[in-house]
Amino acid sequence: MRHPPQRIKTTDVVEWDEGRERRVQDDLATEEPLEIRVGGAPLTITMRTPGDDFELAAGWLYAEGIVERGSDIVRISYGRAADGCTTGNVVEVDLRPERSVDIGAFQRHFVAASSCGICGRASIDSLRARGTRKPNDALRTTPECLTDLPGELRSVQRVFGRTGGLHAAGLFEADGTLVAAREDIGRHNAVDKVIGDALLHERLPLSERILLVSGRGGFEIVQKALVAGVPILASVSAPSSLAVQMARAGGLTLVGFLRDRRFVVYSHANRVAAA
Amino acid sequence: MRHPPQRIKTTDVVEWDEGRERRVQDDLATEEPLEIRVGGAPLTITMRTPGDDFELAAGWLYAEGIVERGSDIVRISYGRAADGCTTGNVVEVDLRPERSVDIGAFQRHFVAASSCGICGRASIDSLRARGTRKPNDALRTTPECLTDLPGELRSVQRVFGRTGGLHAAGLFEADGTLVAAREDIGRHNAVDKVIGDALLHERLPLSERILLVSGRGGFEIVQKALVAGVPILASVSAPSSLAVQMARAGGLTLVGFLRDRRFVVYSHANRVAAA
Repeated sequence: MRHPPQRIKTTDVVEWDEGRERRVQDDLATEEPLEIRVGGAPLTITMRTPGDDFELAAGWLYAEGIVERGSDIVRISYGRAADGCTTGNVVEVDLRPERSVDIGAFQRHFVAASSCGICGRASIDSLRARGTRKPNDALRTTPECLTDLPGELRSVQRVFGRTGGLHAAGLFEADGTLVAAREDIGRHNAVDKVIGDALLHERLPLSERILLVSGRGGFEIVQKALVAGVPILASVSAPSSLAVQMARAGGLTLVGFLRDRRFVVYSHANRVAAA
Repeated sequence: MRHPPQRIKTTDVVEWDEGRERRVQDDLATEEPLEIRVGGAPLTITMRTPGDDFELAAGWLYAEGIVERGSDIVRISYGRAADGCTTGNVVEVDLRPERSVDIGAFQRHFVAASSCGICGRASIDSLRARGTRKPNDALRTTPECLTDLPGELRSVQRVFGRTGGLHAAGLFEADGTLVAAREDIGRHNAVDKVIGDALLHERLPLSERILLVSGRGGFEIVQKALVAGVPILASVSAPSSLAVQMARAGGLTLVGFLRDRRFVVYSHANRVAAA
């Protein structure tokens, strides 16, 4: 039996608080590399918090355009690291033969662009060229509903409560009902995990969902939301200029600074209607 | 004349605050890709906030082990994008001929590891193998001095004040005097910028400095601090398990949750001594 790495590691630290020093135990969010292999070939390594690794791998492959639906994946399992150990830090994915031909093209693009999937595979020219579906224009939510979402997400963040160090992504129905939530030390990983979960259960596109992320709304989060067909993306902090530009072009409702019963709508405000 | 991209972009948004909706102007932190080329060959693309691009390129090349001192770089300039335009989003670096031989090896490693520099180039096996110098064990600071640093850094964060969306990295003397500060939408970029500035002025290693970063203290920040010879690294939020592990192994004093006149020391607490 493989024992997966722990999400929390406890350690001895020195705490200093207004002149008082004491030795205490502190909980740390685990950060470990995960290598994602497809058909035996390593495609990427991402630093992540262990847990929901298969969802993370599936969500990443979906965001990169390597898979389009859950049935493209015939098998996901933990693999052996280079030293032969089964560490829980390698995920092996086998695709339907029809999908596997894309791998070579991905690797060539990967090299040519001098960039990588973790970082959004952002070449200056390909940024605008990437095609995404237009999100559902009929979805509506209310300001009151939006302002309730951060509290809902925080209430299920188990690891954050102990470590103070994790990002989270949550999927909600338009009435504010929480559907799925995942935590990770990386925002983009938390998003890949909730979208990967939906992929593996054949629940894509997410055309009836609101996606909430802790932290900033950068361009790569907007890109992942657009690929998954999410109509409303909200973050508790500031979006970047490129995130706003992509959201406007892609037809996505982008909400930022969603905290303290206040928020800012950066694009397609029509989906947020007063009750 | 090239006009560099702006750090702030202003846009029309809808603000919702406790039931009141109004149209306002909002400042966004600019996020644009920067391609770093060495000897004409593209090595990486990173999403960054424009400004201090040469420092960013120099700091990144240093963190990756491609340059060791400022004199390894014979020329840094803005280059042309693939479409022939000089956009300010391509930086061309020319190295001394002796250093240039490393480029091919870097690119081969880059491909082999299926990862990239922006993400820490973290292969499971190479993480622990990377050699770094032991930081200066004689440097001392005080708890009172440490708790003053976040306020100092925030006071010079010009773009953050307007956008709420930028990370910062600051270099301080042991008595709390601010030496350098840089902002970026990415924490790792802000660190590369302050270290790159020191590299270009031949002020490395930073054996008499405290490095403060906003946000989390992840492993890649610890790695960059160790490579630059920084003895004390502080962050305003939580470190990860791997960050603590690397700091302990590398002899670095790692401080976390530095805010509200409180902090936690995760490793080598001997450098923080009550006055």
